[in-house]
Amino acid sequence: MQSTMQDVPLLVSRILRHGSTIHGRARVTTWTGEDEPHRRSFADVGARSAQLAHALRELGTGEGDVVATLMWNNAEHLETYLAVPSMGAVLHTLNLRLPTSQISWIINHAPDRVILVNGTLLPLLAAVLPACDTVEHVVVVGPGDRTVLDGCRPAVHDYEELIAGRPTGYDWPELDERRPAALCYTSGTTGDPKGVVYSHRSVYLHSMQVNTRESFGLSWQDTVMPVVPMFHVNAWGLPHAAFMSGASMLMPDRFLQPAPLAQMIESERPTVAGAVPSIWSGLLAEIDANPRDVSSMAQVIIGGSACPPVLMQAFQERHRVRVVHAWGMTEMSPLGCVSHPPGGLDEDAEWAYREKQGRFPAGVEARLIGPDGEEMPHDGVAAGELEVRGPWVASAYHGGRDGEPSRPEDKFRDGWLRTGDIGTISPDGYLVLTDRAKDVIKSGGEWISSVELENLLMAHPDVVEAAVVAVPDDRWGERPLATVVLREGAAPDFAALRLFLAERLPRWQLPERWVAVDAVPKTSVGKFDKKVIRRSHANGELD
Amino acid sequence: MQSTMQDVPLLVSRILRHGSTIHGRARVTTWTGEDEPHRRSFADVGARSAQLAHALRELGTGEGDVVATLMWNNAEHLETYLAVPSMGAVLHTLNLRLPTSQISWIINHAPDRVILVNGTLLPLLAAVLPACDTVEHVVVVGPGDRTVLDGCRPAVHDYEELIAGRPTGYDWPELDERRPAALCYTSGTTGDPKGVVYSHRSVYLHSMQVNTRESFGLSWQDTVMPVVPMFHVNAWGLPHAAFMSGASMLMPDRFLQPAPLAQMIESERPTVAGAVPSIWSGLLAEIDANPRDVSSMAQVIIGGSACPPVLMQAFQERHRVRVVHAWGMTEMSPLGCVSHPPGGLDEDAEWAYREKQGRFPAGVEARLIGPDGEEMPHDGVAAGELEVRGPWVASAYHGGRDGEPSRPEDKFRDGWLRTGDIGTISPDGYLVLTDRAKDVIKSGGEWISSVELENLLMAHPDVVEAAVVAVPDDRWGERPLATVVLREGAAPDFAALRLFLAERLPRWQLPERWVAVDAVPKTSVGKFDKKVIRRSHANGELD
Ligand SMILES: Nc1ncnc2c1ncn2[C@@H]1O[C@H](COP(=O)(O)O)[C@@H](O)[C@H]1O
Repeated sequence: MQSTMQDVPLLVSRILRHGSTIHGRARVTTWTGEDEPHRRSFADVGARSAQLAHALRELGTGEGDVVATLMWNNAEHLETYLAVPSMGAVLHTLNLRLPTSQISWIINHAPDRVILVNGTLLPLLAAVLPACDTVEHVVVVGPGDRTVLDGCRPAVHDYEELIAGRPTGYDWPELDERRPAALCYTSGTTGDPKGVVYSHRSVYLHSMQVNTRESFGLSWQDTVMPVVPMFHVNAWGLPHAAFMSGASMLMPDRFLQPAPLAQMIESERPTVAGAVPSIWSGLLAEIDANPRDVSSMAQVIIGGSACPPVLMQAFQERHRVRVVHAWGMTEMSPLGCVSHPPGGLDEDAEWAYREKQGRFPAGVEARLIGPDGEEMPHDGVAAGELEVRGPWVASAYHGGRDGEPSRPEDKFRDGWLRTGDIGTISPDGYLVLTDRAKDVIKSGGEWISSVELENLLMAHPDVVEAAVVAVPDDRWGERPLATVVLREGAAPDFAALRLFLAERLPRWQLPERWVAVDAVPKTSVGKFDKKVIRRSHANGELD
Repeated sequence: MQSTMQDVPLLVSRILRHGSTIHGRARVTTWTGEDEPHRRSFADVGARSAQLAHALRELGTGEGDVVATLMWNNAEHLETYLAVPSMGAVLHTLNLRLPTSQISWIINHAPDRVILVNGTLLPLLAAVLPACDTVEHVVVVGPGDRTVLDGCRPAVHDYEELIAGRPTGYDWPELDERRPAALCYTSGTTGDPKGVVYSHRSVYLHSMQVNTRESFGLSWQDTVMPVVPMFHVNAWGLPHAAFMSGASMLMPDRFLQPAPLAQMIESERPTVAGAVPSIWSGLLAEIDANPRDVSSMAQVIIGGSACPPVLMQAFQERHRVRVVHAWGMTEMSPLGCVSHPPGGLDEDAEWAYREKQGRFPAGVEARLIGPDGEEMPHDGVAAGELEVRGPWVASAYHGGRDGEPSRPEDKFRDGWLRTGDIGTISPDGYLVLTDRAKDVIKSGGEWISSVELENLLMAHPDVVEAAVVAVPDDRWGERPLATVVLREGAAPDFAALRLFLAERLPRWQLPERWVAVDAVPKTSVGKFDKKVIRRSHANGELD
């Protein structure tokens, strides 16, 4: 017996066509820092995406060619997101927070032929380009000083001039759904950056997943604000998912500081927003100091690193905003778990669930591998390294030495992705991460969770941020070093902090090494950069 | 460049594993007609599905074999839904409302090797079996008089005895996602019944779609009541979607009469329910007469045939229940459109949208083909035959004469499904069906919509039901014949009804032929059976 179903591929062009027709009245609003934000309908985004595809084809972009963006979150970035994969090329979102040498390395490795760049980022591109060999065209989006590119090899174009007057329809090719759609490099903390190549199939399935209530449940009644950059794992899939569900979008462009964020939330009233914890703690401090109405946000998604429970509580109690904790990674498109509590619980019981990393969707299978390579039970107690499998999970990295995908052993095993995260899974499928495999503190043969120490410390009223790392110890192998950012005006009373922890943890887990710091160093995507802390400590800078 | 994503298939076994672990506490409640309904957790459904698969394998069921059900909506039917496709066999849901000769024909055509049957349906099976050649095993679920099968060829087993003591885990095979999962025959109004074979891929994608808010947005906070039978297009995909999202289920079993339905809604408080209009109008009459609290139903999905607007309004106004109109067909898994209005409208404007058939999801592309084969604009005015395309839409029917799938020209064209529905699509993608291609009335070279006449008539207080068909007319070719079921005690005043229509329609569309009938004949799945009405008229029975 054969199935009698049509063999229709899952393509980004379907998302593009659907959003720009059925949801043509939805709109993307881009913050400009001026009186009025910029507004564009999904119908117009669709028409301009077709124009962009015509323009890119004229520049010689063919199937499988890589088109990069060095852009903020804005309407034109959305057009690029949709047009480039739909025409059969591959969208490569460059992380503008990386060191210039890494950006050049990545451009050469991809390799990128065309780069779309926001005018405000031209100085960065000018610093990067001299080391790049493959780039033939630069397309400048929006105002900015173009003279900084004078003398550079690639041809320079203006986005609006390039697309003007072209047909607003495009005969999107019927691609194989397993063809590449987008490319993202992880801000890997060791070795060269690693490229993950999403397929049309994975983008499409992930978008559907985002639109189920198990994940974020976007709909045409929402306005979604991705504060998470569009160069960070496809802004968690929010742009594609919004276009698929007809959710309007609010794009912050380069205005990512707490004050403008608070202002755009108050005036544009997004219903869903997503960002890493450091953005939200900045916003919290801002709206605590200068009250703003941010209560439109029915769902504030926090992910990318562990969300301190105290941050979730503060938002809910002081600003009537519900924080939803989510976990994912570049290799997973990125979802991952979302921490909706089960039904029928009282508030305290709900909180216990909401602080976890969350529940897996049907599309992501999970297993825990213990220290000796054995599979651990999902009993909420046994810890192991988390491995995952599913249609939007990576099986390899882009372009190893011989051009073939590479499968480093510490990342892939028997078709599963090794996440490098250590945690437990409860019988009802909730993940709790206790550490990164490389951040866990091995003291006298036992594991101490750096994340648990950090969360407890950040619950203390004097502590703004805390990062705990393992440092070598003659007697125990490793011991925790606590680096803390104190509230302005607070005295560094580490004995009191230790006592505070002692009420909640066994004695042997309490740090004896403490340092007050001005700020916790962050990675390019806003996570605690423990590598830097460990290096500072090794260099004797934190004694 | 290659995508680096894992090649993980979309399988029913993933839905099964997800629902029975992550959502293991959700439950399926089956109405028993006694004091207490029967309750079973999703975890138990998962364990018993594994046991069933072991049992079926022992009975010789291999990959691709067809296992049929002749069952009501209940927990065991759900187990069969999940186990049979997951083990690689094909689930065939038999429509117990068909004439016995058709049921036998379908069993032979599939062909079915095993039939699971509810004990209460044994007399029906006994009438059907003598004409069936391929059935080797009958598995009886629940109490019922087994002696009626005495002397029949297949071996007879008891479901509980068969699965008892078997392992509660099963190593579900990693199938190709395009392998067949389930088989459903359309209650075709002409010719032999036609089989549609859903694939694992189509079932999985359709389930995700059902769980987006564009469709029904099921979640672990819902309790879903499929009144629509599980032999009618997979109960609209609700069982799979519920298991995927963790929505609990309320199964009415054979208690489909208005009074028990009202009782189970009041006591079990489902949040979502789905059925054809005739079920809901029966329920409405019941709760108007004997008030019950049915307000738990946040979403009452009405589909399968056009929903009379007056029915939607009555539910909302008198019982605080929101009716959602949906459109689909067996060949579409079945969704289809769902009529959620756009955001930001006032109530009147919302109603205008909610009465339409609804908006297409990204997974279903639509076009309208006009009388001369040309594509019609989506302007909300131009009418044409609707054709659709997508990964859960059929491209053929199961097993033509040579065993190959058949593609009758009136149903399939260039990879598109011809729906046989006539309608318009607005620029914002809302479908309005005006008629079945074969029911439209061609009068003097113009089309008259039978559905529009029926809806207007049913809005008259004296009319309970109305069905309009085309009858031959010497002068105009065809003219409408209105058959109406009058409210008890109402006098048959057709002149008044005609006047009522005249306020809303052009004169030339008004029927001059009228008949009062006791009931409108219905098909096995509860739709108006216009074939029967036309035949009665041809036989002079309606003059
Ligand atoms: N909610 C979270 N809680 C803890 N760690 C997280 C969370 N979300 C992401 N991460 C970490 O971030 C990693 C993925 O980083 P990236 O690929 O840069 O997004 C994961 O493997 C986790 O270690």
